[in-house]
Amino acid sequence: MDERCERVAAATREVGADTAVLSAFDSVCYATGYVIDLESGPSAFAAGPPIALAAGPDLALVLSNAEEGPAPRARRAFTYEGFSAEREPPRDALYVDSVLEAAADLGIGGVVAVEPTTLPLAVAEALRSRVERFVDIRPALARQRAIKTAEEIELLRDCARLAGAGQGAALQQCAAGITELAAFAGIRAAIEREAGERVQLVSDLLSGAGRTGEAMGAPTNRVIGYGDAVICDLVPRHHGYWGDSCNSFAIGDEPPAFAGLYATATRAMDLVREILRPGLTAAAVDAEVRSVTLDAGYELPLHLGHGIGCANFEFPLIVPEERATLQPNMVLMLEPGAYAPGTGGVRLEWMFQVTETGNEPLSDFPFTSLAA
Amino acid sequence: MDERCERVAAATREVGADTAVLSAFDSVCYATGYVIDLESGPSAFAAGPPIALAAGPDLALVLSNAEEGPAPRARRAFTYEGFSAEREPPRDALYVDSVLEAAADLGIGGVVAVEPTTLPLAVAEALRSRVERFVDIRPALARQRAIKTAEEIELLRDCARLAGAGQGAALQQCAAGITELAAFAGIRAAIEREAGERVQLVSDLLSGAGRTGEAMGAPTNRVIGYGDAVICDLVPRHHGYWGDSCNSFAIGDEPPAFAGLYATATRAMDLVREILRPGLTAAAVDAEVRSVTLDAGYELPLHLGHGIGCANFEFPLIVPEERATLQPNMVLMLEPGAYAPGTGGVRLEWMFQVTETGNEPLSDFPFTSLAA
Repeated sequence: MDERCERVAAATREVGADTAVLSAFDSVCYATGYVIDLESGPSAFAAGPPIALAAGPDLALVLSNAEEGPAPRARRAFTYEGFSAEREPPRDALYVDSVLEAAADLGIGGVVAVEPTTLPLAVAEALRSRVERFVDIRPALARQRAIKTAEEIELLRDCARLAGAGQGAALQQCAAGITELAAFAGIRAAIEREAGERVQLVSDLLSGAGRTGEAMGAPTNRVIGYGDAVICDLVPRHHGYWGDSCNSFAIGDEPPAFAGLYATATRAMDLVREILRPGLTAAAVDAEVRSVTLDAGYELPLHLGHGIGCANFEFPLIVPEERATLQPNMVLMLEPGAYAPGTGGVRLEWMFQVTETGNEPLSDFPFTSLAA
Repeated sequence: MDERCERVAAATREVGADTAVLSAFDSVCYATGYVIDLESGPSAFAAGPPIALAAGPDLALVLSNAEEGPAPRARRAFTYEGFSAEREPPRDALYVDSVLEAAADLGIGGVVAVEPTTLPLAVAEALRSRVERFVDIRPALARQRAIKTAEEIELLRDCARLAGAGQGAALQQCAAGITELAAFAGIRAAIEREAGERVQLVSDLLSGAGRTGEAMGAPTNRVIGYGDAVICDLVPRHHGYWGDSCNSFAIGDEPPAFAGLYATATRAMDLVREILRPGLTAAAVDAEVRSVTLDAGYELPLHLGHGIGCANFEFPLIVPEERATLQPNMVLMLEPGAYAPGTGGVRLEWMFQVTETGNEPLSDFPFTSLAA
């Protein structure tokens, strides 16, 4: 049994259930390997979200004919007619029937672990006659998912490599006289060239003192100027896993406030690489690294980091009040920075695997304080 | 009251309910004007989808602090803490509490119209004590939404204009020796330059005999060749509405099968412009136009058209078994084509407003059989 299936089963047992019905895109991907297309939004030719059903090692997937794709860890896919060139199919009824067929096939019943904030009412109602009660699997599943399998670590390393290709391109694309949007187009093209296919890409791309001081925001038609600072946060999704990354750099010449911000963020990232290890709490990592920024007189309005996997933000968050203990094979994004609202901001972000004794970066792009 | 609010209220009454709770991204946008970001997938910092509550003219919106944005037709937004730099907030409880607060504020109760395939179980359970029963608003709301308001028609015209900017760029970007992905990057950049901001863009971009014969597919790293045919279907989303479009053209020189396919698709589109008018059924339009393709000995594996609005595919579909009658101020995509699997394919697609007496194209890009 794939270790991810084992972890779904463990979470199911942990919440006192025998079987599970999963409806969140990232849980479905985690359990079955099926990658839901997110970029287009929910398919108009599906009645509802793809549903993964799990009974121990036995997994099934329900999805429409408009969404077919590999689901390597599902024993069987129950596909209903969502798209037809002839008519509007009775897809709601077909969807619910497929869920019931899959539930019967796997023996879903009794106490069933679900995700109550994504499970559609129509699916819950249909299952009701088979189910004694629903219980929430999410906190248990989040903890199980935090420890990555060897295969997941390779998938995440690949995502980190794509993000790094984008960061390399960013140093070329971001130049005086170019809009943020045009630079972003070139960065995306470089990532897709590297992947050889379309890649979903989420990003912050900010230039100038005012924008970088705000820490987050999509690229706009602002023209990048000579002497501007840039924050470039690139989050590609590939094969169902996410790669996060951030670099900050100046165009041609460092603006006045940049050196102090950049030196502080660099010191914070150096400290991350020095201290990140199993046994520490998320809060302890946060406290040590955050103090580098605060002691230098700058602000840090964001979390310091987060888990990553089939979702970009996973348990644990690296924040002041998170008492979770770091464990080997967690994969964490650490994104220390330094911000001075109105004046500028710098953020550096790498992906790290927590190892038995410390950490190993999965990101390999260099932080570079000047664009090419 | 905005006509869209009236139409939500009418659909609510039609299904025997007094109030409505909407959970699908497109319904929330239609009712409140709030544009949910789709490109990144569901927000990790939201407990569940934004929820719109409607009691006659009175609308409220529930969403997380990570999703704040204008909701011009909502009297009030109930915002809960989904993101915090300090801790993982108890966002599920806050989400449900906000829904209940909004429900109390609007007097949601009795028979409540909902969307059962997107309404999360957690929200349904929370509302249960206020609700006598849930009824499905979707078929009634789909029919109401099919008739566009004057403001919607202008929004859709603007989307058609952005799609047209992309089609213009496609004729420049698609060239021998360029990959489909690189051409797509240039097309997207042109649309975003025109819009002055990031634009969600869904697309088919297919080159060569084999690919165009398959009718649909994302751009790949296939290198476009001299004498290739290209199908370029661009679907931008702007201000919560979608613009669809398709052009087909040859690179440098028409491949052998192209002329016959293109002439057939052109004849079919000419017929659309001639016959599309209120009073016809969708099936009748389909039959007349489809026969142009079939009589020429080609295939048409897709629907002939569809409504468009806050969703890309809306009621009515223009398909053989759809008996709905076309009405003034429906906005429809018509996408006749001709396909010969293995040999090639051509698709032409424009947006049309059904008028009192006929139709008016909202698309204005020219169909052009040769790239620049």
